[in-house]
Amino acid sequence: MAEALRVALAGLGTVGSGVIRVLEANRALIERRAGRAIEVVAVSARDRTKDRGVDISRFEWIDDTVALADVGADVVVELVGGADGPALALARATLGRGKAFVTANKAMLAHHGLELAEAAEKAGVPLKFEAAVAGGIPVIKGLREGAAANEIARVQGILNGTCNFILSKMEAEGRDFGDVLAEAQALGYAEADPSFDIDGVDAAHKLSILASLSFGTRPAFDDVAIRGIRQILAGDIAEAAALGYRIRLIGQAELGQGGLFQRVQPQLVPQDHPLAHVTGSTNAVVAEGNFVGRLLFQGAGAGDGPTASAVIADLIDIARGEAGPPFAMPVTALADAGPADTGARRGRFYLRFMVADRVGVLAEIAAAMRDAGVSIESLIQRGANPDGSALVAIVTHEAPESAIAAALERLRGSQSLVGEPMWMPILA
Amino acid sequence: MAEALRVALAGLGTVGSGVIRVLEANRALIERRAGRAIEVVAVSARDRTKDRGVDISRFEWIDDTVALADVGADVVVELVGGADGPALALARATLGRGKAFVTANKAMLAHHGLELAEAAEKAGVPLKFEAAVAGGIPVIKGLREGAAANEIARVQGILNGTCNFILSKMEAEGRDFGDVLAEAQALGYAEADPSFDIDGVDAAHKLSILASLSFGTRPAFDDVAIRGIRQILAGDIAEAAALGYRIRLIGQAELGQGGLFQRVQPQLVPQDHPLAHVTGSTNAVVAEGNFVGRLLFQGAGAGDGPTASAVIADLIDIARGEAGPPFAMPVTALADAGPADTGARRGRFYLRFMVADRVGVLAEIAAAMRDAGVSIESLIQRGANPDGSALVAIVTHEAPESAIAAALERLRGSQSLVGEPMWMPILA
Repeated sequence: MAEALRVALAGLGTVGSGVIRVLEANRALIERRAGRAIEVVAVSARDRTKDRGVDISRFEWIDDTVALADVGADVVVELVGGADGPALALARATLGRGKAFVTANKAMLAHHGLELAEAAEKAGVPLKFEAAVAGGIPVIKGLREGAAANEIARVQGILNGTCNFILSKMEAEGRDFGDVLAEAQALGYAEADPSFDIDGVDAAHKLSILASLSFGTRPAFDDVAIRGIRQILAGDIAEAAALGYRIRLIGQAELGQGGLFQRVQPQLVPQDHPLAHVTGSTNAVVAEGNFVGRLLFQGAGAGDGPTASAVIADLIDIARGEAGPPFAMPVTALADAGPADTGARRGRFYLRFMVADRVGVLAEIAAAMRDAGVSIESLIQRGANPDGSALVAIVTHEAPESAIAAALERLRGSQSLVGEPMWMPILA
Repeated sequence: MAEALRVALAGLGTVGSGVIRVLEANRALIERRAGRAIEVVAVSARDRTKDRGVDISRFEWIDDTVALADVGADVVVELVGGADGPALALARATLGRGKAFVTANKAMLAHHGLELAEAAEKAGVPLKFEAAVAGGIPVIKGLREGAAANEIARVQGILNGTCNFILSKMEAEGRDFGDVLAEAQALGYAEADPSFDIDGVDAAHKLSILASLSFGTRPAFDDVAIRGIRQILAGDIAEAAALGYRIRLIGQAELGQGGLFQRVQPQLVPQDHPLAHVTGSTNAVVAEGNFVGRLLFQGAGAGDGPTASAVIADLIDIARGEAGPPFAMPVTALADAGPADTGARRGRFYLRFMVADRVGVLAEIAAAMRDAGVSIESLIQRGANPDGSALVAIVTHEAPESAIAAALERLRGSQSLVGEPMWMPILA
C-alpha cells in the first residue's frame, strides 16, 4: 500500500468538521477505494478551542491560514469561504508551492477560477472542486468525465437549496415569501443576511462553473444575468399551479451561435420536466448532450455530510492519481464565447400584474401586449384584495424576450398598475 | 499533444456504429477533453459489407473477432454481447496481451467480471464498463468515484428500459401486458424474444454490478432473486394508482448485518419517491450513502447515442490515464458478503388475488392473512369479470416477508382463487 495522502485543512465550520468526521467514520472503506490512507495532518481555523464534536488535538494547529501551504501535506483543503481574502491567498500559496488544492468555494472559483486553474496546470498539480456545485451530487465529475463525449447544448439546474426550500414551502402551504423566509431563518435553512442566496448570486457562481465544464468555455460569472425570488407572490405560485407549472429558481446556460447564454431567475417548470419534482433543499442538474440526451443528477445540495462527501471524493481522486485539468481541458483550450443576446431568445412567458380597481385596466394591458406583438395564450384575473387591487396572470404564446420587455415598457408608469409587474420564462 | 489512443472495435451493430459516429461528430471536443485524439484503427463484425451509415473502409478489417487483441491498438472495445463466446474470448485475449479493455457487456461482467478484473489488475491495464449499466448515465463513475467517500447502504434502480416502457404505457393507457408488449415489439422497443428483458435477467446483470461497486463486495449475480413483469395486470396498475403508487420493475440491493440482499422484481413505488417519476424507456438509479444521503442519476438507458457516449467516456478516462481498478478497489479487497435471508425482511406489501364468484372468499383470504400474522391496512374488491371472477387487492401493514409467504401458502390450492396470487413489496 502506498503512503498516506496527507491533508491540511483550512476552516473547521460544519463542513470542515464534517470532513474530519467522515474520514474517521469511513476510514477503512475510503482506504480501500483510494488505494491508500487519507490522513489530516494539520488544521487552521478562527478559534482553536471551540467544541466542534471532533477531536482536533492530534492535528498540527496553524494560526495563520495561509501558512497551511507550508506544512508537510500533499494537499490543502480550503473550506474558509469568500471570493478573496485568506481563501484566495491560501489557494495561490498552495498551488505556488506545487501542492494539490481542493475547495468548496464557488465564489472564489467564479471570480478567480481561471487564474487558479492556470496556476495548477503550470505547477502540474490537481485543483478540484466537486463540493463547490450542488453539494454532495457528483455533477462536476458527471459533466467533466461522464458526459465528456458529448457536445452539451444546455445545462439547467436547481442550484440553491435555500431558494428551493422557500419556494417548495410557499407552494405546499400557500404562504407568502417573507413569512416563509423568516421561518427558514429560524430553522437555520437561510442565513441572517439571506441576500446572497435569495437574490440568486450563489446559484450564479455555481452556474458559471457548470457552464464552463459543459461547454469547454472560460468561466464567465460577470456575464450571468441574475434575478432572485424576492418578487414571487403566493398568488404567482397558485396561478402557476393552476396552469400546470411549478415555480423554481433555475440556473440555465446554453451555448449557441449567438454566444454563451447564462441566467439565474425564477421560471415556470412544466410538471413533466424532471426539475419540477425537486422539492425542499434538494439540488438537481439537467444536462443535455448531443448524443447522450438528457441526464439528471439529483441529491443534497448542502449540509456537512453531503459537502464533506464531495470534498473527500476529490481527495480520493487525488490519492488515486486521477485528477486531470481543473476545467476538464487545459485553460488554453477553453473557448471565449462572449455573451449571447438575450432579447432574441424565443419562448413562452408568464407575466403578472397587480392592477388597480378601475375601468379599462385589462384593455390597457391587452393593448400593450398587442402593440408589442405578444400573443396571449391565457389570462386569469382573480378576486380582489381588500384594497381593491387584483392579480392578473398572463401566459403568452411563443415570443422573443425583447417583445416582452417592450410590452412592459409600454405599461411603465401606468395608473392601472400597482407596483412592478413581474415576468418569468416558461422552462422548455 | 500526446499520441492518439488507438482503438480496436469489436461489433458494429447500432452501438458500435454509434461509437464511430460520435467519435467523428465530436472529434475536436473529445480531443480537447481527452488531451489526445481517439482513433479507431481496426474493426471486426459479422458482415463486412453491410451498410451501417458509417464509412469503415479506412479501418483495418479483422475477420476473427478474437484476433483484434493482436492488432496495433492500445485498447479494445467489445460490443459483441453474450456472456461467453467471442466476447469472453476477446476479453481474455486482450487483457492477457496487457491491453486496456472497454465493454458494454453486462451479461459477461455479471458472470465473469471478477475473473476479468483480476486479469486486468495482474496486467496493470484498465477494464472499464460504464455502458454496461444504465446506458448513457454515468452511474458507474458516480458510484465508484463520486460517492466513494460513503458507505452505501442501499441502491435501487430502474435498470431495464423495455420493462419501464411497457409499465409506463400500461399505466398511461390502461392496457394489458400482452397487448403493450406486442406494440413494443412492433416499435423495436422490445426484442422478438423479450424474455431476457421482461423476466428481469438483464436488470439482474446490471444490479449485480451496481451492488459490487456500491458495497465493495464481489459481484454475485447467482444470488440475485429475479422476478419479471409478466404477471402484472392492468388491474394491478389501476389499484396501485388508486392507492398512490406506481408499479416499476426495481432492482434493489442492500448490504446489512445479515448479508447481501439483491433482488429484481416489480414493486409499488410511492409517488414521492424519485423513481415514481421515471417513465418510458428512461433508466434511473438511487444510491443512499451514509453521509451524502440519497443520490439520483437518471437518463437514457439504451440506444446507440447514449451507449456510445458511455463507451467513449471510458476511452477518454483511459486516454487521460485515469482508470483505476475495475470494481473501484482491488479484487483482493472486495468482501464476500454472502446472501441475506429475505424472509426476515420487513415491509409493507401489495397482494392481489383473482377470486371466484362464491360465498366466503374474502373470509378465507382474511383468515389466511390473520393466521400468518399479517395485518391488513386496506382491501379493495372491485366489480367482477364476465366469468364472475373478481380482483381483490390488499395492502398490508408492516410484516416480515416470511409471513406473506406463509399466508399465500395457506391459500395454496384454495377453490376460492382463480390462478396464482401475486405479491409485490412497497418500496420504502
